[in-house]
Amino acid sequence: MFETAELGRSISKKDYKARVADLRFEMLQTQFGLHGAKHPVIVLISGVDGAGKGEVVNRLNEWFDSRELEIHAYGVPSDEELERPRFWRFWRTLPPRGRIGILFGSWYTQPIVDRAAGLIDADHLDAEMHRIARFERMLVEDGAILVKLWFHLSRDAQEERFRTLEADKHQAWRVTPQDWKNFEHYGKFRKICERALRQSDKSYAPWLVIESADARYRDVTAAEAILDAIKGRLANPRIDTEAAVVHPDLDGGKTILDSVDLTKTIDKASYEKELIKLQARINKLTWKANAEGISTLCVFEGWDAGGKGGAIRRLTGAVDAKLQNVISIAAPTEEERAQHYLWRFWRHVPRAGRVTVYDRSWYGRVLVERVEGFAEESVWRRAYSEINEFEEQLTEAGIVVCKFWLHIDKDEQERRFKERAQIAHKKHKLTDEDWRNRERWDDYREAVDEMVTRCSTEFAPWTLVPANDKLYARLEVLRTVVRRLKDALG
Amino acid sequence: MFETAELGRSISKKDYKARVADLRFEMLQTQFGLHGAKHPVIVLISGVDGAGKGEVVNRLNEWFDSRELEIHAYGVPSDEELERPRFWRFWRTLPPRGRIGILFGSWYTQPIVDRAAGLIDADHLDAEMHRIARFERMLVEDGAILVKLWFHLSRDAQEERFRTLEADKHQAWRVTPQDWKNFEHYGKFRKICERALRQSDKSYAPWLVIESADARYRDVTAAEAILDAIKGRLANPRIDTEAAVVHPDLDGGKTILDSVDLTKTIDKASYEKELIKLQARINKLTWKANAEGISTLCVFEGWDAGGKGGAIRRLTGAVDAKLQNVISIAAPTEEERAQHYLWRFWRHVPRAGRVTVYDRSWYGRVLVERVEGFAEESVWRRAYSEINEFEEQLTEAGIVVCKFWLHIDKDEQERRFKERAQIAHKKHKLTDEDWRNRERWDDYREAVDEMVTRCSTEFAPWTLVPANDKLYARLEVLRTVVRRLKDALG
Repeated sequence: MFETAELGRSISKKDYKARVADLRFEMLQTQFGLHGAKHPVIVLISGVDGAGKGEVVNRLNEWFDSRELEIHAYGVPSDEELERPRFWRFWRTLPPRGRIGILFGSWYTQPIVDRAAGLIDADHLDAEMHRIARFERMLVEDGAILVKLWFHLSRDAQEERFRTLEADKHQAWRVTPQDWKNFEHYGKFRKICERALRQSDKSYAPWLVIESADARYRDVTAAEAILDAIKGRLANPRIDTEAAVVHPDLDGGKTILDSVDLTKTIDKASYEKELIKLQARINKLTWKANAEGISTLCVFEGWDAGGKGGAIRRLTGAVDAKLQNVISIAAPTEEERAQHYLWRFWRHVPRAGRVTVYDRSWYGRVLVERVEGFAEESVWRRAYSEINEFEEQLTEAGIVVCKFWLHIDKDEQERRFKERAQIAHKKHKLTDEDWRNRERWDDYREAVDEMVTRCSTEFAPWTLVPANDKLYARLEVLRTVVRRLKDALG
Repeated sequence: MFETAELGRSISKKDYKARVADLRFEMLQTQFGLHGAKHPVIVLISGVDGAGKGEVVNRLNEWFDSRELEIHAYGVPSDEELERPRFWRFWRTLPPRGRIGILFGSWYTQPIVDRAAGLIDADHLDAEMHRIARFERMLVEDGAILVKLWFHLSRDAQEERFRTLEADKHQAWRVTPQDWKNFEHYGKFRKICERALRQSDKSYAPWLVIESADARYRDVTAAEAILDAIKGRLANPRIDTEAAVVHPDLDGGKTILDSVDLTKTIDKASYEKELIKLQARINKLTWKANAEGISTLCVFEGWDAGGKGGAIRRLTGAVDAKLQNVISIAAPTEEERAQHYLWRFWRHVPRAGRVTVYDRSWYGRVLVERVEGFAEESVWRRAYSEINEFEEQLTEAGIVVCKFWLHIDKDEQERRFKERAQIAHKKHKLTDEDWRNRERWDDYREAVDEMVTRCSTEFAPWTLVPANDKLYARLEVLRTVVRRLKDALG
């Protein structure tokens, strides 16, 4: 879910100045408008080291009227606090109705830190997140406006930030030895945070992950998010605690697909050489996985003419026929329609030790069914968590889940369509529907972005494959399978 | 929560015959009415050993048209099942739309059994229950009508049932050595089940706990529950997955308060003797608890003139003044009204090692506020789980939570009111409000019944104190505090 907060968003100095002037006026207006309202506003400031959380708090204190703002930072618990239930310290600092409380650190900090330190196990973290979800729902049902901000930096951005600070003699103190120590565990920490955020991301209390490499973008986005949340709730006091989570569009237009480097390419000779090696490797690994009862499940999605078929054939060509099964997803049968839509995918879940390839998949619901309006919004929205649940259960059963989106640009698609139209044995692959889908390009981009944000999980990550060069794409798929299988086999 | 399924409900042979004739006709009608409907019906048959789950399944098979009924029992998983994710076996046996599936044993069995055997910890059980809740919500959102039946026997009823079966040479085989072995762990098993049920009791998939000592009551109630669920859903296809759980009234009129034996009494001399002993014991225990940092929190609720004041004084009289605090709950202050209603109880949570007595409490919301209409139904309904969460957090922090309902009957209350009216120094205790509350007697009975059903938890059980005899009631309170403190101190 953090992938979409690593797109390099920023705001120029000029734009910043222009936006902040209006913003500050609106912030004060909104803050005064809260007087006498039945809503307390609770803003949680969380995120990774070096993202500048303290600076954000200072900025908010400057932009809001600080006399009516409460800022609470939660450090080491006091004696008083230690002698009481853990949440007591939060209860005593909740802002009253009509006021804004900025909580620097919050009820999320301890469980995440404890999990990272190995003091609690994954089940316990889950239990803590469920408790928090119930706590937050209780506050929201009572009128609270809850704004949960997560300030994110990619690994590289975090490192760069630390180095920049250290190079500045006035700021070097900001980077502690502990920061560098934590940095070594960036990957592990990220996984834990991802899980924690996913489980506590609710319609009534959604997380907003803010890309924080650029301070101007970070501060403006945070302030705007708070404003939007307050105005949204005042306009619509009825809370539907079970609606699907909807995150605001943080930067109109830019999607995760823009981060895929489509210039990647490989020459035919190198391709042939590496292909043979990778296939041999996969054959060996899948036999070994078979012996250990570990199944592999590969999902292929992508643009029409993105090269799914070719990539699938290179993969299946490497796996012994006895071990594999390719499932092409078409319209459901009558029997399948009489069941929950995941039923037809459950029924094909392989026995232990097999390789199953899905040519299109359960993601149809949040792609074509969403874009074409075949499924109602409430239905495809709830599918995200249903799918995560499904894939988590697969993973828990020891199945390695690989998911590929074969990405090409619009020009490349047109070129391939035209090529198909001209080549006799490829003509059948091009239908009117392909041209129609093409008109929905931007809708699909948006759908893919949300799909990756919500369903690229620590247990079943999405791989976005640059596929303008088919050969490069095929190798990338095989490489990913090799890596995932190696990880699983230990 | 099982207390209210131990009230000795039964149906006479004559009533049974009369009800079954209509029932069977209606069951067939309803079953045929499902044809072409978008709803599969999923009935879970769960509960304790000896409750006759198998007999219920046979009965349903007899009463419904068995050709259109699917019955699935989940025993030891097959090879096929073991090689796939755990839920695969359930997915493959889900009934299609328009049909009824009876699931004998279900997704609840394994987690509960594993927890009882100590194979998983409490956090893991919680995680399993959350997973199940998500699974069930998914099914229900897709149209499924889910009926979750839990067949309950008290410890005594279970023992009696086993003995009766053993005495019958044709039925003795029904009782296995394992049954007797499990019976030894009745108390532990009950706690685990209570937790599991509480966490998976949702508006869209409520549990129905059926008292099973009487087979006729059991079978008729189960069949009626299934019918009601189907008819209810067909009449109201829109599911609100976040509404509060509402359980059907299983036996109009009878409440948990009817199980309190109000004839209990003690003579003055014995009272004086035991009182002194108990108070000395409490003094000692509370000092010991203080040394170990264990706090005690005693909640007193009950009928007007039920004798709360007297019971509280006998308790506080035993505890050193430095260690105790009595909090009388009146109308909230302005500052308190600006916060969530639990805030004012959180603020008084004691430091470690103290005794805090609440004269009335957070239960006001589900008692007076419910009965008098001061709180909307949605507000007091959600308070049950908020309160459970609050008390669970207190318990986790090592606080012993004792909750007393001082129970008297209506005649005794009248007698006491009249006595108060005549005694000068007691006159001030009797207000017009007391007489008004009295008119709401039945509403309060219902509210108390639901409060105990929902909020008598394994970590913070309710004690219903027979208080027609004040002296007996006081001792019962002190005895309970002694027992709970002893348990906590180990």
